[in-house]
Amino acid sequence: MKHTLIVLSVLATCAAASAQSSVTMFGVVDASVTRLSSDSANVTGLASGEQSSSRLGFRGIEDLGGGLKAGFWLEGSLAVDNGGTSYRFDRRSTISLLGGFGEVRLGRDKLASYLNVESFDPFGDIGVGGNGLNNMLGGAAAAEGTAEGSHPKRSSNIIAYISPNIGGLQGQLQYSFGERPSNQPNNDRGNIVSARVSYQASPLEVALGYAQLDAGTAATAVTYKATNIGASYDFGVVKPMVLIATERGAGRGVNAYTLGASAPLGQAGEFRVGYTRFNTQNVDDADSSKLALGYFHKLSKRTVVYGMLARVSNDNNASRGFAVSSSSLTAPLIAAGDSATGYSVGVRHTF
Amino acid sequence: MKHTLIVLSVLATCAAASAQSSVTMFGVVDASVTRLSSDSANVTGLASGEQSSSRLGFRGIEDLGGGLKAGFWLEGSLAVDNGGTSYRFDRRSTISLLGGFGEVRLGRDKLASYLNVESFDPFGDIGVGGNGLNNMLGGAAAAEGTAEGSHPKRSSNIIAYISPNIGGLQGQLQYSFGERPSNQPNNDRGNIVSARVSYQASPLEVALGYAQLDAGTAATAVTYKATNIGASYDFGVVKPMVLIATERGAGRGVNAYTLGASAPLGQAGEFRVGYTRFNTQNVDDADSSKLALGYFHKLSKRTVVYGMLARVSNDNNASRGFAVSSSSLTAPLIAAGDSATGYSVGVRHTF
Amino acid sequence: MKHTLIVLSVLATCAAASAQSSVTMFGVVDASVTRLSSDSANVTGLASGEQSSSRLGFRGIEDLGGGLKAGFWLEGSLAVDNGGTSYRFDRRSTISLLGGFGEVRLGRDKLASYLNVESFDPFGDIGVGGNGLNNMLGGAAAAEGTAEGSHPKRSSNIIAYISPNIGGLQGQLQYSFGERPSNQPNNDRGNIVSARVSYQASPLEVALGYAQLDAGTAATAVTYKATNIGASYDFGVVKPMVLIATERGAGRGVNAYTLGASAPLGQAGEFRVGYTRFNTQNVDDADSSKLALGYFHKLSKRTVVYGMLARVSNDNNASRGFAVSSSSLTAPLIAAGDSATGYSVGVRHTF
Repeated sequence: MKHTLIVLSVLATCAAASAQSSVTMFGVVDASVTRLSSDSANVTGLASGEQSSSRLGFRGIEDLGGGLKAGFWLEGSLAVDNGGTSYRFDRRSTISLLGGFGEVRLGRDKLASYLNVESFDPFGDIGVGGNGLNNMLGGAAAAEGTAEGSHPKRSSNIIAYISPNIGGLQGQLQYSFGERPSNQPNNDRGNIVSARVSYQASPLEVALGYAQLDAGTAATAVTYKATNIGASYDFGVVKPMVLIATERGAGRGVNAYTLGASAPLGQAGEFRVGYTRFNTQNVDDADSSKLALGYFHKLSKRTVVYGMLARVSNDNNASRGFAVSSSSLTAPLIAAGDSATGYSVGVRHTF
Repeated sequence: MKHTLIVLSVLATCAAASAQSSVTMFGVVDASVTRLSSDSANVTGLASGEQSSSRLGFRGIEDLGGGLKAGFWLEGSLAVDNGGTSYRFDRRSTISLLGGFGEVRLGRDKLASYLNVESFDPFGDIGVGGNGLNNMLGGAAAAEGTAEGSHPKRSSNIIAYISPNIGGLQGQLQYSFGERPSNQPNNDRGNIVSARVSYQASPLEVALGYAQLDAGTAATAVTYKATNIGASYDFGVVKPMVLIATERGAGRGVNAYTLGASAPLGQAGEFRVGYTRFNTQNVDDADSSKLALGYFHKLSKRTVVYGMLARVSNDNNASRGFAVSSSSLTAPLIAAGDSATGYSVGVRHTF
Repeated sequence: MKHTLIVLSVLATCAAASAQSSVTMFGVVDASVTRLSSDSANVTGLASGEQSSSRLGFRGIEDLGGGLKAGFWLEGSLAVDNGGTSYRFDRRSTISLLGGFGEVRLGRDKLASYLNVESFDPFGDIGVGGNGLNNMLGGAAAAEGTAEGSHPKRSSNIIAYISPNIGGLQGQLQYSFGERPSNQPNNDRGNIVSARVSYQASPLEVALGYAQLDAGTAATAVTYKATNIGASYDFGVVKPMVLIATERGAGRGVNAYTLGASAPLGQAGEFRVGYTRFNTQNVDDADSSKLALGYFHKLSKRTVVYGMLARVSNDNNASRGFAVSSSSLTAPLIAAGDSATGYSVGVRHTF
């Protein structure tokens, strides 16, 4: 549930209130006791956002008449474990014009092609159970010239067009400015094009995503390409899903897939399972697999207690682990060939 | 329009709500596609706050009875393009006591003398069209000993007195503590005195501003002085305005003026034009001029789409350009004698 | 008074509003002109939070039925004097489950043992008058291996149990994870256990606190222990209080006590006095004493104007001073044996 603050230009009668426009404050607070281990070490602590990323945001929408609307969305990460180092609107900061033509959106947002990574993962690409099918070729450091990795969750400086939903079919196209001056060599580094086409008609959902990132150094241009396709079908007793993702660039490549399912258990419970396989294309014996199990119990529509466990197995030349959503809990070093295990027991509250 | 959140100590009936006091959340979200070019390069990207600085704030006022009020104002910058690096209350953070005597205000605020720079610029000293008549002798680095420049927009540690408005006449006096200990050489570095006197009786507005900043190094004290005078007259079909500003200090000096006008175009449109001339006193052949044009179209009272363009011409020894209100879009280097051109097409939404 | 924002999933009628749940925005804005002097220098400026720490927060509580509740609390420091460097939820960021069994709370919070330091100080361990009976053996740098000192105000990564209040008796137990991996030497550095037992039955309040912090370096483990006991009794015309605190660790030790009182003066006034004595155990001639006086005048329940003064006297080998709650006002260096004097005149507003 999201909460809309009643908005008044003066503190007037209640009758006046319902005629005014609105700004909404919303958020997620999620904390857990989490234990992470590699073959050589383990660490236990508090994590933030294992079931759903902790966040605080402000958004609003204005009806301009004639079917046209204006909207804004400001959403920042929270680190419940330690209060964070600086609140900022890193998750989303956008302004939109919306109408029958669709939506034009400017600002910082999730990449269109990234949306499938979380939509078709039973763990939403979050916490120890998350599949991690983005930035498979490396984060910001590894993918020189891109600000946030080889296929990041989000990008700044986006201008996007989102089509209207026509019988369940919807498309989204984004361009993210790298903002390098024209007299720099390879000045298109940082530019991103991303697109997504989705079809959603319950119980079926299927979507295709693509992103192309200009990267590299001043001397050598590199292009990263990410492609993914996902599908889910809700049978009621169980909702299976599949995601296939691939990244290519700088002579490297990873193919990966997630097979997962969620299933209701009684009135308040839900069981989730996900299996992910990473296949490194350019290095031998560098594949990994991950199995994740979780149980989520609703205390209300807004409050959930949960337990999750996941295990990663690495080939001799791979060292994949977990990306824990916390600002101070750090997974122990995963050496090549190590296995990694993670547990989380926590509670999540939305407002 | 600003939105006042209804305030209740408990979730009681609506009748109770209107008897309680209030805290207001407010903001501006402004994003644009902006292109900046010098003689040697150009860059295109997303800017935040070209028409009006993007911001999010919280403020409130309490009636203490007997004509006395207490108020607070917390307002921080937003960077819609990339979500910002850290939200903080950099725009204004003050607490006030108000009454028939006027207002005593403590905290971080705009300098009184700076208010004219934005009031008498048709572009509000913002975006590619803004005149930039503050910090003309240099920012924090150039004006050693001052935290934010030779004549900054804002200062911290201010204690201010703002007079009541008597027949349109109003005065404001500020003292900003530099907070250096008494045993430091030139320990008055950072201290600022600023004052403004204004007369506003529609259609006429005229105001005079002055600031004196103690600066320099431990070895050498420097005093910066900034003076400005502005006036506007609203004829209805057009509102012309003029601003004359001068800064002196450290053997340097700049005189500058802006001539501008805004004019309504139909029900929803507004056209603005501004011409600014910078005259460097202590260097030959180091003058600059800037011409800015803009069109602003109201989709509602709160939402505006706009287009602006501006051009700066520099003498052989000048390199003035644009101060774009964005945390990631950076203007290309302006070499001495270069011209610079800027365009912005964007949308601004207030709440 | 705290303000609850009315919460609606849509902008519906007022009748609907009172049936929904709530999120509360709250805060304190406190600014003062403060002068601090040592034997060699003085500095005057604006301080933030001399009477009560300036803050902005968001919190909420949800009734889950059956006596169970879920709650969150996000609260960050404000620096009214300069707007702060980055807003974050450094004061408290927690999620809780509450019921007849008590409360389980996860996140960043005040240490249970610290609560007595502010509860039994007439100045609330804040501003020039505050007693400063925490971190007596040193802050983060001095107590290597602890993130925030030898006995910090707050800690991150806490899991806490707070008992129900049974006839005025209540207990709290906390464990704070240091989050060091198991293969680091002395990997329990940073772990904290803290507990508090309190009895409150007006007019009497008494409480006992204890904390144990694992610290030191990879080569040498150090344990810090802090113990305190406080009591107050409200006679109506005067409320005396006493706090005794001790810290031990790394071969060092400090014993300290505060004797204080608050007394109403007329309808709106309150007078406070506090005397604190620090006794350094491991160094000769290194004791200090502090005397603080304050007058607080309520303009309303929410707005207070105040004046405070305090003086610290140091033995020849001690250099204790003030911990001013401001992000830019820094006390002048206190040399060993120096005396220090502080004054504050300010205003505090809560919302």
